[in-house]
Amino acid sequence: MSDAIPARALQLRSLVTGLAAIQVSLEEVDVPVPGPDQVLIRMGAAAINPSDLGLLFAGADLSNATAGGTADRPVVTAPLPPPAARAAAARVGQSLPAGNEGAGTVVATGSSDAARLLLGTTVAVAGGAMYTQYRCIDAAACMVLPDGVDAVAGAGAFVNPMTVLGMVETMRDEGHPAIVHTAAASNLGQMLNRVCIEDGIPLISIVRSAAQVKLLTDQGAQHVLDSTSETFMDDLTAAIAATSATIAFDAIGGGRLASRILTCMEAAHSAGSSYSRYGSDVHKQVYIYGGLDRGPTELTRNFGFAWAISGWLLTPFLIKAGPARIAAMRDRVAAGLTTTFASSYAGQLSLVQALQPDAIAAYGRMATGTKYVLVPNGGAAAAAAP
Amino acid sequence: MSDAIPARALQLRSLVTGLAAIQVSLEEVDVPVPGPDQVLIRMGAAAINPSDLGLLFAGADLSNATAGGTADRPVVTAPLPPPAARAAAARVGQSLPAGNEGAGTVVATGSSDAARLLLGTTVAVAGGAMYTQYRCIDAAACMVLPDGVDAVAGAGAFVNPMTVLGMVETMRDEGHPAIVHTAAASNLGQMLNRVCIEDGIPLISIVRSAAQVKLLTDQGAQHVLDSTSETFMDDLTAAIAATSATIAFDAIGGGRLASRILTCMEAAHSAGSSYSRYGSDVHKQVYIYGGLDRGPTELTRNFGFAWAISGWLLTPFLIKAGPARIAAMRDRVAAGLTTTFASSYAGQLSLVQALQPDAIAAYGRMATGTKYVLVPNGGAAAAAAP
Repeated sequence: MSDAIPARALQLRSLVTGLAAIQVSLEEVDVPVPGPDQVLIRMGAAAINPSDLGLLFAGADLSNATAGGTADRPVVTAPLPPPAARAAAARVGQSLPAGNEGAGTVVATGSSDAARLLLGTTVAVAGGAMYTQYRCIDAAACMVLPDGVDAVAGAGAFVNPMTVLGMVETMRDEGHPAIVHTAAASNLGQMLNRVCIEDGIPLISIVRSAAQVKLLTDQGAQHVLDSTSETFMDDLTAAIAATSATIAFDAIGGGRLASRILTCMEAAHSAGSSYSRYGSDVHKQVYIYGGLDRGPTELTRNFGFAWAISGWLLTPFLIKAGPARIAAMRDRVAAGLTTTFASSYAGQLSLVQALQPDAIAAYGRMATGTKYVLVPNGGAAAAAAP
Repeated sequence: MSDAIPARALQLRSLVTGLAAIQVSLEEVDVPVPGPDQVLIRMGAAAINPSDLGLLFAGADLSNATAGGTADRPVVTAPLPPPAARAAAARVGQSLPAGNEGAGTVVATGSSDAARLLLGTTVAVAGGAMYTQYRCIDAAACMVLPDGVDAVAGAGAFVNPMTVLGMVETMRDEGHPAIVHTAAASNLGQMLNRVCIEDGIPLISIVRSAAQVKLLTDQGAQHVLDSTSETFMDDLTAAIAATSATIAFDAIGGGRLASRILTCMEAAHSAGSSYSRYGSDVHKQVYIYGGLDRGPTELTRNFGFAWAISGWLLTPFLIKAGPARIAAMRDRVAAGLTTTFASSYAGQLSLVQALQPDAIAAYGRMATGTKYVLVPNGGAAAAAAP
């Protein structure tokens, strides 16, 4: 197999069937020919983020996944519990590509100068359908990776780094002095910790074990709290009092953690002021940006009336931020891809490997230290391509 | 008893004791002498709003209220369930006055021109401690009632009318085309219905019985939905599709109604668009402004990420709105006090009557048609004043 561009290549696809099941498979598709302003990227690596898992598996019960198909065209199937099936009703019967971001080498370009300039470079891109061997995309979407940064290092150059910077920018836009973050031992949480240290922003990291407290503390974090500790509420109130935090980003979503954060913010910010049954007038904001716990969010509302809990997504933030700010954020990410914005992966998976139930059990867990990167032209999958 | 101003008069007081109980009583207090810019009002009437009940009874179990004291100085006591006791911890031992708003006759003034001009007029005021026989307040706080509008008609001239106008202004400020309202058969809900009809704003009123549907429909409401109906979710989705509503004001707080509203908004606004597991990009806002259900708010989050649920209170809205807008709102209210902004009361209560357990059982229910007005200088209480 040389660098010659094949006519057909493999793409990972996700399908919700009419029988309330998810079916993930490899499809052979035509390799596209770039238009004038486009480039064709031979994908070197693509991150598997929690946000990708939602599209890939649609909330299926992965503990009951079954393997099918052939060795080089595996098909994995898993049942959807009723709530997941209801939520996925709109996509039944549609075979969807997946993968928000990735990186690779530009192997063909369109005729425009901007496109031709990229030939042979290693670029990072976002825009969906990245779990594929060849991806055609606008030249303007490409971030050229600095010398010495390979496709694996660039595979996660958008989602986590831009989300982390988006959180910090949101905090600044809204005038909050410090941030509370949950599920904070995650790859994203560690990255946020590095950015906050660089920028001198007080950060309160909420994790779920003593080992995770140590992990973040060893990385220089000042306020790391274990939500399973008996003193958690007091500790969180004290940390909020020390930092004046009034904004939180929550990746968990379900349960009472968001409510507890608001309760502690209210306790910290109303301490010493006179009683009002409407609570303090200090505005407290929680943004839910993930759903590690798919259960309902429960708000006890014992935190007055000056609060909001909202969904937060990167894309609407970027639309609001505009091109100039986005460019500045991307420049900062590119300069820090192997340091501040580095992702650490538990392992690499070929397209074929990614469809093995044991691999899915590992990367589908979304637990700390189980982040994987896909290498679409690596391993068995590469041999399977014509 | 003439119009002579007494030296001492009665005031209603609420005290949370160290034994997790609420104690509501009448205290004899000095009648204040107005400062240069102040007026003294002989209170004719004061509304009992749900927001007053929170301060008066602090979430006590009123079904176990016991009467004490004497015939002309009754004391009512009721136990606080543990969550209410925790929430009221900051006010233990403080005897608090109550009553957000009321109206009466100016019987004495300070020396300033603004104050002296008000002598003999009937005015409406807000600012707390209105459940009293004589209230001293800044002349600037007074709304002079139009000819023919008495104190009872002016007793609720602020909280409900300004809240209703505040909701409409919030809708306009944020660019929403229509409003969803819960507990919509309330006095406030009927008022909102009249304002929306006047202003041509589509309103979706959610109530809890067929009788309440009839009550609002008879008052010209177009979209009235019974949340106990089997077809409620479909009906609400259809009404939202018809009106494009993206904002809701919720007086209930606890349970899943706020979540259901967001679910229906998402269903109505994403109909016909292509599937996205992040949901539509139509921003959906629910404001919780009351707590008729004190249980936790449960959000199922099956409505994408473009949503917010927040506390909403009149005072912060007014601070943001500024004096010119407030003045315009007050003028509109004054002109409509016996029509658009009229409150209908189930009955009048003297201060002594308001402390009888059977009266509390009636006005403490916060059910449709049980709104009462206090007449601090009426009935037995007037005789009790020196």
